[in-house]
Amino acid sequence: MRMSELSSRSGLAIATIKYYLREGLLPQGRPLAATRADYDESHLRRLRLIRALLEVGRLPIASIKQIISAVDDDSLPTHVMLGVARHALSAAVAPEPGDDWSEAEHDAERLIAAQGWRIGRRAPARAELVQTLHRLRQLELSTDLGHHAELAHRLVTEIEIPSVTPDGPRDSTVESVVLGTVLYGKAFDALRRLAREAAEAEVSLSTAPDA
Amino acid sequence: MRMSELSSRSGLAIATIKYYLREGLLPQGRPLAATRADYDESHLRRLRLIRALLEVGRLPIASIKQIISAVDDDSLPTHVMLGVARHALSAAVAPEPGDDWSEAEHDAERLIAAQGWRIGRRAPARAELVQTLHRLRQLELSTDLGHHAELAHRLVTEIEIPSVTPDGPRDSTVESVVLGTVLYGKAFDALRRLAREAAEAEVSLSTAPDA
Repeated sequence: MRMSELSSRSGLAIATIKYYLREGLLPQGRPLAATRADYDESHLRRLRLIRALLEVGRLPIASIKQIISAVDDDSLPTHVMLGVARHALSAAVAPEPGDDWSEAEHDAERLIAAQGWRIGRRAPARAELVQTLHRLRQLELSTDLGHHAELAHRLVTEIEIPSVTPDGPRDSTVESVVLGTVLYGKAFDALRRLAREAAEAEVSLSTAPDA
Repeated sequence: MRMSELSSRSGLAIATIKYYLREGLLPQGRPLAATRADYDESHLRRLRLIRALLEVGRLPIASIKQIISAVDDDSLPTHVMLGVARHALSAAVAPEPGDDWSEAEHDAERLIAAQGWRIGRRAPARAELVQTLHRLRQLELSTDLGHHAELAHRLVTEIEIPSVTPDGPRDSTVESVVLGTVLYGKAFDALRRLAREAAEAEVSLSTAPDA
């Protein structure tokens, strides 16, 4: 297809697509003439991936470049490529050295072991879990998240993962991981807060004398 | 207790506590002399609430003032006070008028009705759910979140809500809602991403030819 069709099918302006070509985010098309080139479905898929990372993942262009390089490097196994994507999606966590932090690390270790999850030592989500456990400890709140972990495991294995297609093109695999992580994560959080609002209303309305 | 003890027990610098006094976030103590005052447990509880909103909720001082005013206004029923807190915790959502947006609103309505949740029309989490559903539609991804809603309902009613104490002081009720919403939400999201990482590794390692 020509650039104009690529633009209309992707919903992106021609100037934007040319910018991605210059930045190396989108591979060049097959040259037809000095100023024309031919694009195919792989270009469309790539544009869809970039949009997802940009608009849904809210990633800066620098992080998107890292992910695209990993996608384009066929020598990287799939799980390494996904690791790069997960890393780019996560907030950096600065450990706070001390006994409390070590305790939080042990709490996280126990939760992960109890679910039988095999997780890299430097997985970004592990650091975020440790940070949250650390905060809960500081505030003297319960760090007993065993039931949370069980429900997270069910949510993922019964509902979310069956929709991931690992055999497709590398672009699509990364896209489904990014979209799955970000969008269904947002959806679940909104639903959880709605459930809380409904449940909190029942608790306070049934006991507050001013209701 | 004196200001110095309030400082050591709250872990906040005296200058910070004086700033909260000037801003009206912390009620004045009982005057003992021209330059001394006496503080009690209610002052400690208030400082703990402010810290939670500031450090865990990452709210700006202006939003914290709104919440504190609602806590201090005894004429407001508990559920209205909690509504103010929930609103301050949420990101603003700008509706995008069009058929897609209306469809997403209907999707959200159906999900909420199916769970039997009673939710205010202008609840911030409802708007965030609509926005996420709208995005899923645009990307042609499944908007069938019935199982997500069911698991969110179980998480909240079986695990999270039993730990909320609605009969305590208003400060404590707001604190437990803010901390519960933010911290256990973060914890669940980290656990969910760990579960995904473990499950995605199994899927891709068992099928990828390069593993």
